[in-house]
Amino acid sequence: MKRSIQDTQIVFIGSGNLATNLAKVLYRRGFRIMQVYSRTEIHARQLADAVEAEWTDSLDSVSLSGEIYFVSLTDTAFVQLVPKLVKGREDKLFIHTAGSIPLDVWKGQANRYGVVYPMQTFSKQVEVDFSQIPIFIEANNTEDHDLMKGIAQILSQKVYDATSEQRKILHLAAVFTCNFSNHMYALAAELLNKYDLPFDVMLPLIDETARKVHQLAPSLTQTGPAARNDEEVMNAHIQMLQKEPSLQELYKLISRSIHNLK
Amino acid sequence: MKRSIQDTQIVFIGSGNLATNLAKVLYRRGFRIMQVYSRTEIHARQLADAVEAEWTDSLDSVSLSGEIYFVSLTDTAFVQLVPKLVKGREDKLFIHTAGSIPLDVWKGQANRYGVVYPMQTFSKQVEVDFSQIPIFIEANNTEDHDLMKGIAQILSQKVYDATSEQRKILHLAAVFTCNFSNHMYALAAELLNKYDLPFDVMLPLIDETARKVHQLAPSLTQTGPAARNDEEVMNAHIQMLQKEPSLQELYKLISRSIHNLK
Repeated sequence: MKRSIQDTQIVFIGSGNLATNLAKVLYRRGFRIMQVYSRTEIHARQLADAVEAEWTDSLDSVSLSGEIYFVSLTDTAFVQLVPKLVKGREDKLFIHTAGSIPLDVWKGQANRYGVVYPMQTFSKQVEVDFSQIPIFIEANNTEDHDLMKGIAQILSQKVYDATSEQRKILHLAAVFTCNFSNHMYALAAELLNKYDLPFDVMLPLIDETARKVHQLAPSLTQTGPAARNDEEVMNAHIQMLQKEPSLQELYKLISRSIHNLK
Repeated sequence: MKRSIQDTQIVFIGSGNLATNLAKVLYRRGFRIMQVYSRTEIHARQLADAVEAEWTDSLDSVSLSGEIYFVSLTDTAFVQLVPKLVKGREDKLFIHTAGSIPLDVWKGQANRYGVVYPMQTFSKQVEVDFSQIPIFIEANNTEDHDLMKGIAQILSQKVYDATSEQRKILHLAAVFTCNFSNHMYALAAELLNKYDLPFDVMLPLIDETARKVHQLAPSLTQTGPAARNDEEVMNAHIQMLQKEPSLQELYKLISRSIHNLK
């Protein structure tokens, strides 16, 4: 029987939000995860259990017989662990998953390496539809690039090539789009909570704000007091935030930024 | 034949985003819009045509025979126009639609008045599903309160009572939730555009960020470098925004705010 792409032996280094979601979708699509490493035993165990893999919390016990090592670590941990990880595995394929880390981080360390960056917000407790997630691919050689693209295309309909430079911009844009938007929701939730008002009433507004930018560029869907330069409303809001200086500062700065972008 | 609630004679004062969407949904649900006033002729005409109403750009020509006057104006225009509008119509029902304006703005001017605040982001060119929009009601008398509630319940399944104080907080929270989130999308779009990257790739991320907060509180769905205190990534981003001082300042302030809320 011909060996399928799913037979590739995969090891996961890291068990955070992204690693958890990526390992699970690979598993569901028929890939075999051999082993999960995390320096925190419970995290290694939880992910390993979910994808029927071995687990270890010791870097020395990471399998030498994997074919692909997916490395999903914070930037700091990444730089510290790479030399130890590559040692004895010089001809394996190393793939990191971070938007912010350039391909070259592997240069002079490993021989075969690449990046598979699924651009999405991942939480361990929330399942996502991977088929709609844009995945950006980069590799240091054509053969591995094609292997990685093949794997990514089993997971998602939206697989693109991106250079490290492009990925860096995409990641920064994603921080604004996702992390900062979510924080705006969180600040609203905090404010409502102070006045015993439920956050749920905001959901139709959140959905519509997201839906609109499928039809029109976000600069064209901008509404609200800053967009129409309604100074009386803005001043009243700034007044209301008198006892919340950091919220007040954010309100002023973002309103000015909206006004400047018009 | 019994007179139905839809036979109420309605006049619209203002033809902006909210007025346009509200007048259209009333029209679609069988209400009769008599007349639309806007100081800009073309705006008055466009909305009037869409809802088969008369139009005028002169306050002196606003009909005296309306039963309900929906007033959707910017705060500044509102205060200027109210006395002239009420004169000769002292016993009509006046309803404003702004989250930010208290009920009392009518006090001493009109005898019967209220607020119908549909909390949503409205654009003239985007149709919305009104049935899911939370509508907040307040009135200075029970009879008109019930009439307004009856009308609102024909438009939406989510009609609530709210005091002026509560509505003010809801409106401020909506500015964070919607206007500020949308601006985060707009800043991302601008950044991507500078590097010839398409904004479309952000849509799955935007959708997922909105979807997640249906399941978990936004403070629990917060991801990204600031949430995990990944200083290397944050410093790299700040570095990348060196030539965009206002973006850089926003990045720092919002990241700090995320960190403080954790």
